[in-house]
Parts: sequence; structure tokens; C-alpha cells
Amino acid sequence: MTKNYHLTPGPSELYFTVPDHIQMALKNNVASISHRSQAFKDIYAHTEKEVRKLLSIPEDYFMVFTSSANEIWERLLQNCTSESSFHLVNGSFSKKFYDFSTQLGRNAQKVEAPFGEGFKTDEIEFPSDVEMICLTQNETSSGVQLPVEEIYKVRERNQEALIVLDAVSAVPYVDLDLTKIDSLYFSVQKGMGLPAGLGVWVFNQRCVDKCNQLMEAGQKVGTYHSIPALLKQAENNMTPETPNVLNIYLLGKVAEDMNRRGVDMIRGEMDYKSTMTYGLLDRHPNFKPIVDNKDHRSKTVIVTEVIGKEPSEVIDYLKKEGLIIGTGYGKYKANQVRIANFPTHSKEIYFKLNDLLESLK
Amino acid sequence: MTKNYHLTPGPSELYFTVPDHIQMALKNNVASISHRSQAFKDIYAHTEKEVRKLLSIPEDYFMVFTSSANEIWERLLQNCTSESSFHLVNGSFSKKFYDFSTQLGRNAQKVEAPFGEGFKTDEIEFPSDVEMICLTQNETSSGVQLPVEEIYKVRERNQEALIVLDAVSAVPYVDLDLTKIDSLYFSVQKGMGLPAGLGVWVFNQRCVDKCNQLMEAGQKVGTYHSIPALLKQAENNMTPETPNVLNIYLLGKVAEDMNRRGVDMIRGEMDYKSTMTYGLLDRHPNFKPIVDNKDHRSKTVIVTEVIGKEPSEVIDYLKKEGLIIGTGYGKYKANQVRIANFPTHSKEIYFKLNDLLESLK
Repeated sequence: MTKNYHLTPGPSELYFTVPDHIQMALKNNVASISHRSQAFKDIYAHTEKEVRKLLSIPEDYFMVFTSSANEIWERLLQNCTSESSFHLVNGSFSKKFYDFSTQLGRNAQKVEAPFGEGFKTDEIEFPSDVEMICLTQNETSSGVQLPVEEIYKVRERNQEALIVLDAVSAVPYVDLDLTKIDSLYFSVQKGMGLPAGLGVWVFNQRCVDKCNQLMEAGQKVGTYHSIPALLKQAENNMTPETPNVLNIYLLGKVAEDMNRRGVDMIRGEMDYKSTMTYGLLDRHPNFKPIVDNKDHRSKTVIVTEVIGKEPSEVIDYLKKEGLIIGTGYGKYKANQVRIANFPTHSKEIYFKLNDLLESLK
Repeated sequence: MTKNYHLTPGPSELYFTVPDHIQMALKNNVASISHRSQAFKDIYAHTEKEVRKLLSIPEDYFMVFTSSANEIWERLLQNCTSESSFHLVNGSFSKKFYDFSTQLGRNAQKVEAPFGEGFKTDEIEFPSDVEMICLTQNETSSGVQLPVEEIYKVRERNQEALIVLDAVSAVPYVDLDLTKIDSLYFSVQKGMGLPAGLGVWVFNQRCVDKCNQLMEAGQKVGTYHSIPALLKQAENNMTPETPNVLNIYLLGKVAEDMNRRGVDMIRGEMDYKSTMTYGLLDRHPNFKPIVDNKDHRSKTVIVTEVIGKEPSEVIDYLKKEGLIIGTGYGKYKANQVRIANFPTHSKEIYFKLNDLLESLK
């Protein structure tokens, strides 16, 4: 039996070193140690160091762990807004963050692009007094990216509002100057190639100040995962609750592996694989990438319409050869498929994928 | 080198079948499958079925997944109270739940027992109009248990308030008629012997009704992990966010293993081990279990004062023989140790532990 290889947009194939790291974790009792022990603190410190290096996180930015990116949407709104947020919505995940804000009683405002289209931020009218501007670097549902230059322009035009960036399926591909935004967050089951169940939240002093200001005004900002509660434990390389220790360990190991290989080389390989695959899809009679504007095409989640066939035909054909690709998101299952291009997906697998898609003609 | 064996009160030694289940999970790509796929829904359904069987959860009680028991404290308060909660506090964890309620702006009330003492619920004056009564079946910090008969008496005397039970280090030992309470919750890194990072929350229709009533009155009950959001996905064997898929899988496998062995046999063995160990500690010159009242002594977390030695001497002595026991909780590190008695801890290990403690005299 061919081993199934997941090119799904998350959860996806594990980073190729993960199975070995899990064996070592079992051997060393990583899942049994106390989350208040020095052994755990050492793991925490190692993971933080390697992730900071991989993503060039400035020293004066904080980094803490949550259980998911969904959780970070909620914590950002609870801790850093009292009234309003503004969302660039162009897919299902950016839309969900907007919905969370409404559910928490904020005045949530949005500018919306059709599914598959991106934003030119010059053309957006930002509300002048909004507390938080919510951007999505890579929409996992539609495969649209927001180029980093567009993000920097948002900062230039909005000095007051906090700018927070969803980098869920962008990390570690996106090469970003974090000093131009106030918060970035991601979960680990996409580009980092880990089992799901861990979120990473990076934020600066402006977010902390905003939280303190809201608390002084009487706002309730949550309990164990409020910014103050998280920071109090993070100072000592700990978390408020018993966390997903195994995943924190694995994240450190994988980030270390990626740093050893070099993030530039990893990004270069991802460019190569995406260029090759978009090239094929553009000239293939049965496919049409749904993002027209090449600057807005995601490098990490390739979304294409399927023409003249059912998407399930394509999916089943590849599955027979051991390659699992993703369905379209939600209602787009009917005519789209999604293909992940993460660091764990080797060039060799991508050659095989391209050959198979070619042979579908 | 002797393999280290964790008798710590959580995280603790993995259930002895977990390493094999992890190998099988890796082989079958459990960490790579989509959380919206049929494969995941099947895993979810299997886990729910086995946990329901293990804990005799009534059919009309709901069961959902969170990331920790800390999270469930917050969700219970957000979803099922608007004004007040009442807490039986006799250790650090029951105290934290009380603190969460204060932090969320509720009128949190408590009756407090000294560390190491339990409650006779007859003697407690319950406020007549409180929305939620919060009990802890087993205080992991102090090793005090609340006998199930005491819990049932609380129900008899309080028909209106929701009664919620912290069973974090009690499951699967505690043999409880769940129809006598409204909610029970636990995390999986204690008695279930799993890696940390998953909470299980069980609640009845009364909790759902209360949440709906608060929402109708305009209360914000959170976002992705509000009761309605959790139930909407649970109906289809899914979670709102990408969850800790690996742990959900492992929980189902371990619950199945325990069901095969029989929960009564597992409980019987735990009784045997705790009786033997308390017996030794009671007559040993260097130890004095901190809970005097034998009805209130936890069967799953044995806490003892260390007399005439430093706790670290005892801990180091056992460690040399490969047995890792827990420190006292927080400031009690100075004169106490804690020993877990979970299903994974075999009689043979407990014989060895008792022999070693005996030889310390």
C-alpha cells in the first residue's frame, strides 16, 4: 500500500522530522513531566528561542501559547478592544474573526472582497477611530494573500489603531517586518507541520498598554488567558494552565530543524513549487486558479477551479497515487480543490503531483 | 539506566497503552486528516462512545471538548452565570475557580476549609439565590476528596442552582450518579494517562437552558466555545476550531482499553493501592498523611507531610530508583510530597514504592 501523503491545507502532512521527535519525546517522558518543573521551563525556553529566530520576532515583542488561532481571535478582542474592530474580509476565516467581534458585542466593521480577490489597501477607507485593524496575510479558504507591502501601507495610514495579522497558513513562508504591525498569530498544524492543538500569539507593548488601559476602565479581559495572566507565567517560561506540552516541545524541535536548514532556503523551495504548479494549472484545460491577480496568489495554499470534471474525480485520482489534496472550502467543495505548499512538502512530491495533474488532461 | 516512572499528580505516567496508540496514529496519519472529514468524525464518535461508557454519562447529557479544565471554568461562568457563584474551597484548584468568577465580575462567594480538610455539606449554609454551586470531587493540591454522598446531599438541598463538579483528578475512579449534578469536567493528563492539552466537559439541558436564557437577556457568552457553538458542531461529531485531534483519538483508545479491562476492576486496584500506601504512611515515622479524616482522603492523589527529613531527600531517594513522585503544591513544597494513584500505576510499581518508603525508616 502506498503511504498517503497529505497536501491538504491544514492539518497537513507532518513535518518530516516530527515522527522521530515524537519517539524521542516518548523516550524522555516529555508528556509526563510537570508543567512547573525546570525540565518544562527548559523546553519552553528552547521553543521560544527557535520560533523567535525562525520568524525574526523582535526582542521587545512578547510570545505566548494558546490552544488555537480561534482562541487568539477571541483573546485579541477581549483584551485589546472595548468598542470596535475593522476587518479586511476575503474568505471564510477573515469572516469568522469579524463574526467573533460581533458576538462579543463590538462594533465590527468590514470591507469585503469577493471570494478569490485580494485588497489594494490604498483604496480602502479606514475608519478613523477604530481600535483594531484585522488583516489576514493568507486566506486559507480562498488562497488569496495580502502582500507585505500592502500591510506596511496600512500601518503608514493608521498609526493609532492596533494592527493584528492572521498568519495561520503564512508561517514560516511570509517574510515580514514585525515592527510594522502590533500582533501576529498562527496555529501549528499548517506550515509548521505539527499535530493541531497549539496557537502562537505574538504581540507588542502597545497591545499590553491597551489591555491595561481597558482593565483600569473596568473591562473584564478574561481569566487564565488574559494578557496579564499569560505574561505573568511567560516571564518564567510557563503557562497559566497545563498546556499541550508535547506540542510545545515538538514546535521547538521543528523550528530548530527549519533554522538549521535555513528559512531562506525553505522559502525559496516553496517559491519554486508554487511557480511550477500555478504554471501548470494556468495552461491546463481542466484547471483555473481562482485568484487572477498574480500578486495576490497565495504561495502556500493553491486554490483552483476544476473545469470539465468533478473535483472529486481529481481528488480520487490523486488519492490512488497516495496524494491527498484538499476539497474547496465549504460550499466551494462543488467546483474547487485546494493544494497546500508547506515546508514539509518536498520538491519530489511536487514533481509527482505536477506529473499526475498533467496526465489528467 | 532505569526508566523513570512518573507517580506525579498530573501530568503523570502515560497510560501504558498510549505509546502503541501513538505509533498507530502516526501510521494512519491521524494528525494529518482534516477535522471536517468523515475519518475525523468517526474518531470523534468513537471517543465519545467510549468515554460515555466508561463514566456512565447519561444519554441526555452533552459531552464536548475544550483545551483544558481551566478553560471549562471560564466557559461555565461565561455561559451559565450572570451574577453569582458559590464555591467550596479547600485547596489551590477550587480557589482558582473562585478567583476566575471574581475576575469575570461575578459575585463569587465561598466557604473555605483549611488546606487538607474536607467538607460536611450538611454544615454549609448555601446562599438561596446563587446561580451555580462549584464543587471539587478531588483536590489535586491537597489530596482531599468530597465523597459522592456529600455531593448528592448538596443536590437535595439545592434544587435551583446548577451544580458543577471538578473531576479533574477523580476520573475514572469516582463512581458517581451524574443525574445528581448538572455538569462534570476533567482534563486528560491525570487519571486518563494522556498527554496534556484536552478538556472534557459534560453538561445537561439545564445548563443549555440557562445559557439560552442569558443570551436572550443580552449576555455575551463567548464565541467559538460558547455552549451553542460547541453543541452545533458536536451534533455532527466535530469541534468549532481545529482541535487537538491526536488527543481526541488517544482518549478514545485509552477509554476503550479501560472499558475492556472493566472500570470496576480498575477502581478495585486503585482502592488496593491506596489502602496499602496510606497504611504504610500512617505507621511510618517519617510521614503523616495531611488528611486526617479517612473518608476525605483522596484515593487518587495521596498527600503526606514529611517528618524529620527534607521532602527533597525522599524525592531524590525514589528518583534514584526510577520513581518520580510529586512535590507539595506551591508553598507546601517545603514539607509535603504528593503521590498519584492512577489507573496506569500498576500494583507492582506500588509494591516497589511501598518497599522503598519502608526502607527509608
